[in-house]
Amino acid sequence: MNAAPALSPIEFWFDFASGYGYFAALEIEALAQRHGRSVLWRPFTLGAVFKVTGAQGLSRTPLKGDYARHDWQRLARLRGVAFKLPERHPKVGLPAIRAFYHVERTDPDAAARLAKQIIVGYFRDELDTDDPNAIARQASLLGLDHDAVLKGMPDPEVKAIAR
Amino acid sequence: MNAAPALSPIEFWFDFASGYGYFAALEIEALAQRHGRSVLWRPFTLGAVFKVTGAQGLSRTPLKGDYARHDWQRLARLRGVAFKLPERHPKVGLPAIRAFYHVERTDPDAAARLAKQIIVGYFRDELDTDDPNAIARQASLLGLDHDAVLKGMPDPEVKAIAR
Repeated sequence: MNAAPALSPIEFWFDFASGYGYFAALEIEALAQRHGRSVLWRPFTLGAVFKVTGAQGLSRTPLKGDYARHDWQRLARLRGVAFKLPERHPKVGLPAIRAFYHVERTDPDAAARLAKQIIVGYFRDELDTDDPNAIARQASLLGLDHDAVLKGMPDPEVKAIAR
Repeated sequence: MNAAPALSPIEFWFDFASGYGYFAALEIEALAQRHGRSVLWRPFTLGAVFKVTGAQGLSRTPLKGDYARHDWQRLARLRGVAFKLPERHPKVGLPAIRAFYHVERTDPDAAARLAKQIIVGYFRDELDTDDPNAIARQASLLGLDHDAVLKGMPDPEVKAIAR
């Protein structure tokens, strides 16, 4: 019997400061598993999209921002998970994105774990995604080399992915 | 046995030129019925909201507009319903909104039927929601008085609701 052809992974594009991204990050792996697929984590900055669409972030949009804050608390109760907006939300989080793509070059599985840990940290424990040291510390908690991650962030190849 | 207290209706706010509003309009009554509730149709102009949020319509937003057009065709296939963007989409549709609130003053049930017929006409048969005569003709198809509807649209009380 031949193996079934591998299904393509689910590409999961999200911003580390997206409230809806957080709830999706908590469920995407189980969802993919139900469909026999893997997850390709793809953090990016929504700010780059807003330059093209002319839109702005939910949290900065009148009416929608207030509604989103209400909706996130409601979703947290529904899912039974913690949710706390950082004091200075939203952060751009370039160091977090760069750390992810640096790690992914050599260890995609560790990068996926790092991505999930970062967005969970942002929405539960005030993890500062703009602070390279805070991100490197998260990586080290997963057994990755703290200094190597710190050095990888400004690597030109990584910066070309996440500017 | 006492009757259960009446549940409040589901307020259904939508723009007559909203693609997602169209798909919702096709399902909202069945959804409400499943929950023992009625539907309070509330057509309004998204343009008034955009003035506050600083956003603009999906169809006019780069990237999102293209995606929405793709998504609407996909939704139409999924639901097995017709869907055709009017040549000059999106229309503001003030005459349609005013006709609705005029009729609703004396016959809320007829107004609800009119609202559904208008949004279905817009997305299937190029119904011009900016043309008072076209809207009055739709009302007459439901047994309403064509000329009374036409006269009701510019009524100051109605215009105060939908400017």
